[in-house]
Amino acid sequence: MTDQQLNALLKELTLEEKISQLLQLAAPFFDGSGTEGQITGPMASMGINDDIVKNTGSVLGLSGAIETISVQEAHMKKNRLGIPLLVMADIIHGYKTIFPVPLAISCSWDLEAAERSAEIAAAEASAAGVHVTFSPMVDLVRDPRWGRVMETTGEDPYLNGEFARAFVRGYQGKDLKNDLTRLAACVKHFAAYGAGEGGRDYNTVDMSERQLREYYLPAYKAALDEGAELVMTAFNTVDGIPAAGNKRLMRDLLRKEWGFDGVVISDWGAVKEMIPHGVAADEAEAAYKSLLAGVDIEMMTTCYENHLKQLVENGEVDEALIDEAVLRILELKQKLGLFDNPYRGADVNREREIVLSAEHRQAARDLAVKSCVLLKNESVLPLKKEQNIALIGPFAQNGDILGPWSWLGSKEEAVQLYDGLKAKTSRIVTAQGSDIESVTATQLEEALSVAREADVIVLALGEHSDMSGEAGSRANIRLPDAQLELTAKLKSLGKPMVAVLFNGRPLDLHGVYDVVDAVLEAWYPGTEGGAAVADLLYGDSNPSGRLTMSFPFAVGQVPVYYNNFNTGRPQGAPDAQVRYVSQYLDIPNAPLYPFGYGLSYTTFAYSDASISSDRMALGQSLEVTVKVTNTGEVAGEEVVQLYVRDVAGEVVRPLKELKGFRKIKLQPGEVQEVTFLLTEEQLRYHHSDLSLLSDAGEFAVFVGSSSRDVLQALSFQLIK
Amino acid sequence: MTDQQLNALLKELTLEEKISQLLQLAAPFFDGSGTEGQITGPMASMGINDDIVKNTGSVLGLSGAIETISVQEAHMKKNRLGIPLLVMADIIHGYKTIFPVPLAISCSWDLEAAERSAEIAAAEASAAGVHVTFSPMVDLVRDPRWGRVMETTGEDPYLNGEFARAFVRGYQGKDLKNDLTRLAACVKHFAAYGAGEGGRDYNTVDMSERQLREYYLPAYKAALDEGAELVMTAFNTVDGIPAAGNKRLMRDLLRKEWGFDGVVISDWGAVKEMIPHGVAADEAEAAYKSLLAGVDIEMMTTCYENHLKQLVENGEVDEALIDEAVLRILELKQKLGLFDNPYRGADVNREREIVLSAEHRQAARDLAVKSCVLLKNESVLPLKKEQNIALIGPFAQNGDILGPWSWLGSKEEAVQLYDGLKAKTSRIVTAQGSDIESVTATQLEEALSVAREADVIVLALGEHSDMSGEAGSRANIRLPDAQLELTAKLKSLGKPMVAVLFNGRPLDLHGVYDVVDAVLEAWYPGTEGGAAVADLLYGDSNPSGRLTMSFPFAVGQVPVYYNNFNTGRPQGAPDAQVRYVSQYLDIPNAPLYPFGYGLSYTTFAYSDASISSDRMALGQSLEVTVKVTNTGEVAGEEVVQLYVRDVAGEVVRPLKELKGFRKIKLQPGEVQEVTFLLTEEQLRYHHSDLSLLSDAGEFAVFVGSSSRDVLQALSFQLIK
Repeated sequence: MTDQQLNALLKELTLEEKISQLLQLAAPFFDGSGTEGQITGPMASMGINDDIVKNTGSVLGLSGAIETISVQEAHMKKNRLGIPLLVMADIIHGYKTIFPVPLAISCSWDLEAAERSAEIAAAEASAAGVHVTFSPMVDLVRDPRWGRVMETTGEDPYLNGEFARAFVRGYQGKDLKNDLTRLAACVKHFAAYGAGEGGRDYNTVDMSERQLREYYLPAYKAALDEGAELVMTAFNTVDGIPAAGNKRLMRDLLRKEWGFDGVVISDWGAVKEMIPHGVAADEAEAAYKSLLAGVDIEMMTTCYENHLKQLVENGEVDEALIDEAVLRILELKQKLGLFDNPYRGADVNREREIVLSAEHRQAARDLAVKSCVLLKNESVLPLKKEQNIALIGPFAQNGDILGPWSWLGSKEEAVQLYDGLKAKTSRIVTAQGSDIESVTATQLEEALSVAREADVIVLALGEHSDMSGEAGSRANIRLPDAQLELTAKLKSLGKPMVAVLFNGRPLDLHGVYDVVDAVLEAWYPGTEGGAAVADLLYGDSNPSGRLTMSFPFAVGQVPVYYNNFNTGRPQGAPDAQVRYVSQYLDIPNAPLYPFGYGLSYTTFAYSDASISSDRMALGQSLEVTVKVTNTGEVAGEEVVQLYVRDVAGEVVRPLKELKGFRKIKLQPGEVQEVTFLLTEEQLRYHHSDLSLLSDAGEFAVFVGSSSRDVLQALSFQLIK
Repeated sequence: MTDQQLNALLKELTLEEKISQLLQLAAPFFDGSGTEGQITGPMASMGINDDIVKNTGSVLGLSGAIETISVQEAHMKKNRLGIPLLVMADIIHGYKTIFPVPLAISCSWDLEAAERSAEIAAAEASAAGVHVTFSPMVDLVRDPRWGRVMETTGEDPYLNGEFARAFVRGYQGKDLKNDLTRLAACVKHFAAYGAGEGGRDYNTVDMSERQLREYYLPAYKAALDEGAELVMTAFNTVDGIPAAGNKRLMRDLLRKEWGFDGVVISDWGAVKEMIPHGVAADEAEAAYKSLLAGVDIEMMTTCYENHLKQLVENGEVDEALIDEAVLRILELKQKLGLFDNPYRGADVNREREIVLSAEHRQAARDLAVKSCVLLKNESVLPLKKEQNIALIGPFAQNGDILGPWSWLGSKEEAVQLYDGLKAKTSRIVTAQGSDIESVTATQLEEALSVAREADVIVLALGEHSDMSGEAGSRANIRLPDAQLELTAKLKSLGKPMVAVLFNGRPLDLHGVYDVVDAVLEAWYPGTEGGAAVADLLYGDSNPSGRLTMSFPFAVGQVPVYYNNFNTGRPQGAPDAQVRYVSQYLDIPNAPLYPFGYGLSYTTFAYSDASISSDRMALGQSLEVTVKVTNTGEVAGEEVVQLYVRDVAGEVVRPLKELKGFRKIKLQPGEVQEVTFLLTEEQLRYHHSDLSLLSDAGEFAVFVGSSSRDVLQALSFQLIK
């Protein structure tokens, strides 16, 4: 269809039909599954009837080639003008081949692998008839109490932006219309959903406009620059106004300033939630505010459906606003080729062929290997084939390693850790040791008895997947006491102990890291998790993951993140007083494990750091070079990190800011020179008047293996 | 001196002399005490010499009539034009008669008593030759990790404003020039010092301009409206710029918008701290930025002293800015009458007569009684004269109950709890039980042996005073393990237990409140602390304190405060889902003890709440009336609290906002009708464009005994 034809189609629609294009309902309304689809149940209480369903613009949570084809077929018959349904779904870290959770993926620092994971997810989901995924989530996070950190890529705005782009490329490819193996991407949650107060999901967000622009917005912008077709609003308030009703955010910033002309969709129920938020007295006011603010599609509530017509007839809402929104939705359908082929990629055969294919599983395994982070290793890993292993803990034989937001993944398909290790060795015994949140004397007895016979104890610990994810906020971020008790009990045997952790957030690891000899953070590693972890434990692969979110020393230290400010009274300054500095009296200021941190089975030495000039002018760049040597016995990958500090700014500037990274593989003894280009543009930041400028003066440059472990000798002057 | 004479004096000053008026140095520079005053020590390294000292405008931390008279006498002789020194000091909650810490004072909800405490502090300090006190601190706080919450009046902007006014009235009286028993008040810390990230002192502050204006600024404004003569800047950044260099904050807001024409002083070292903050490359730039931003007096660093002259001569700084600052300082000296009598109230005889007088001690005791908050009481308090009491704990016989910022108070003068109780009963034995942060088996044994003989165990627990106060941030806000262990051990005896807590912050009381039968929060109650607590424990006084800062359930819940927003997915709403609401999975959302909470030995019933109209128009008001009945057996005081909720605003509005309170005393069976006037002006708040307006629509009105325990029946419509 041409633009002209789309406009003509728009003109043919009645006001009611247009309004229904703005509605998104869940699958049960279409396929009759569950209770939601029953006309006497929620459907009726929402004011939904079959007439509305047949005009509805989009469906969420529908998938499977047979189901999507059948629903679309029925819809095309019922819809007066034959406008196809748009099928959206939460394809977050895989469709049925489940990759590690996004926070884990980001720990790979491997943009290509991340892109590939999105490409595979898109291939599987598009064959199952999905058109749009509610991904990537690019919310910057600093609070591990928030369970949904597992769906993010961590605490750094630059890294978040790079991963945002990688995921969008992977989902969308280069030609959404003709490449039927792709999905349209919906970047979320606009904006600053990651900054909920107290780490409590959906909670109030408050920050300066400058902080919003400097840290929280860049990753959304990056996703849009990469071409993401949709934007989803956040549940939280932004400067006092819920995102779904925030005109300044959507009309002024997203549409006008950034020029985004794709579809904006609310999150689930978020339009109606403006009532409990307390900025709308009723559904009509919620509809009014959201439409004016720029939400095109209302997900799963019916404020638009039940009130927009009246608002137009009253003259309170200009129908042109509705037309605009509908046109954007029709354009998206057009971009996806749905007017030519409403079934798009849905293909029963292809679905059968590629979903969970060996190739996809291998990709999932590779990425899981790259995503695990070795936090501690006191000469115990890798395991040796001749050692007798006792695998103990609630995750020893547990398929709950896919993580939240893997609703189409099957725990039964997941490779459990025991099975992964069994493929490496026959010298292994196992015991559950404890449940995730409770333990019995019998379990402890059994664990001790099994462990007594072993040379090494491998503890498989973690949080069940409902302990993180959406609405999975926790005030206590240690592992459950039952598992700490199990750990302490086993310690009494005096044997080498390795903890493998399955969880979705940075934890306070007291009771684990200070007890065992090695800690491997496996996150939720996905379908091939057990195999990947076994690869790492036995040294068939070498750990190369690096943290993208700081592990706090204690929950009382939160928020803790690497790119903080110095304050006027920094701890540890040469002339610092003992007392009157910015510190906690009872714990360090530093996190337990910082951003960028992660060990390898080999070691890397940094040397000969140099800078191509000690001066940089406006619009110019310089090069930072460093030699990295593999000083250990095995091949390994290192993430070489470049950080910068603006020593005196117009506003305070972070102690370090990531400006580049390179993941390199080195054979034992191999030396590689790594060169980063650093541009003046990268030094720009939001000044107090919100202008994006760099400052003349001194810049310190750091190169190294984590935000903590860097060479600090370099600096240059920016000349203006 | 007339204004004309002041201006003439200004003209006589050399540039160097003017710049030195802007300098504030500590007492040792003047009286030669300590090492700081040695010309070879810090004085020299700061670039200070005797020529500078003789021209210096003000001194801090000097007190005592003999000392101040002697220093002033010497200064007047050396200063070329006879400009007297301004003597400033931290008189925070009493001079030598120490009152409870400000957070405790605020729990009295007694503005007259608070004013009286400031009046007494001023009387003692002014007789000792002090002219200005660095008080009141009115920073709004929400994070009990911050040790300096003890110096605030809590989490509510309205209550903070009322106490700010009361303290200013108490310090300054009505005629600063002629009433020599008063001090000029310096409101601090401008601005938002209470919002340091992570509760870490001096840490970064970031919030929206709207939040700053709505919650954090009102109390500073209230203090200035009441006539506070000085403003002290904060250590933190405000929107990225350290307060001491924040032009927008001081020139635009404080001076232009609010019209403040008094003296602005930096906090200790804060001008130079712009270098570590990273907004000034060196001392010259720090001086430049602070002067342009509006700091008149630089406290304890010498950026002005060593660099302003050069900056003027370079043409970078307009000498007129220096003249303005100097004139403000001279005007303050003039207001205090120092040109007529440079010794002002300093009077050795009067000092001897009034400092720690019986009258002052009685006032301190009365206020301590009002400030303690009874958090729990399961039929054990008040104690009975015939009971045998075992007083156990590190605060049983401990004078460290004055609290931080009581540098002139003497622990030896403090009434310890044991002595207070001994004055009530001879049936008392005591044991230390534990140290504050450690415990020995012997101590526990002794405690158990002493407690075995008793009918009731009174535990005296708490934090030593260095665990809170400035730079006293803690990540763990439970009592030290040693004291929790002592508590648990004593519990095994199965006897009634009462915990009396001496501390400076809201604590996580797990391990105490869930173990003992009664908890009395005594804070740091001051010189008469032990006597006041004994009055309460024996029922000679009835507890009437109410919390002004929420006690969190756990540190992982911080920040938690009563005037939060509902979110779009509130916990406990009628249609709320089990999972997808804003909550922690592992603990409640509500604090353990909320704002406004506190028990009495009697009970109060609320009834017949009514409202004079169900409609209010712009500029109008209505009355809210409620009957309160003392339904218990003894006389008692109740703090009747009025809260309002704006149900649907332009931005989200708090679930409750304190709009009025009344402390009333009722005899057993007595009924009193309490009427609050509620004006439309009180309903105004900062809209998204920062305008201060009320919204038409529904308002819910709550009356009751705490922010949690209220009658909820009332509402009205605001008509526009």
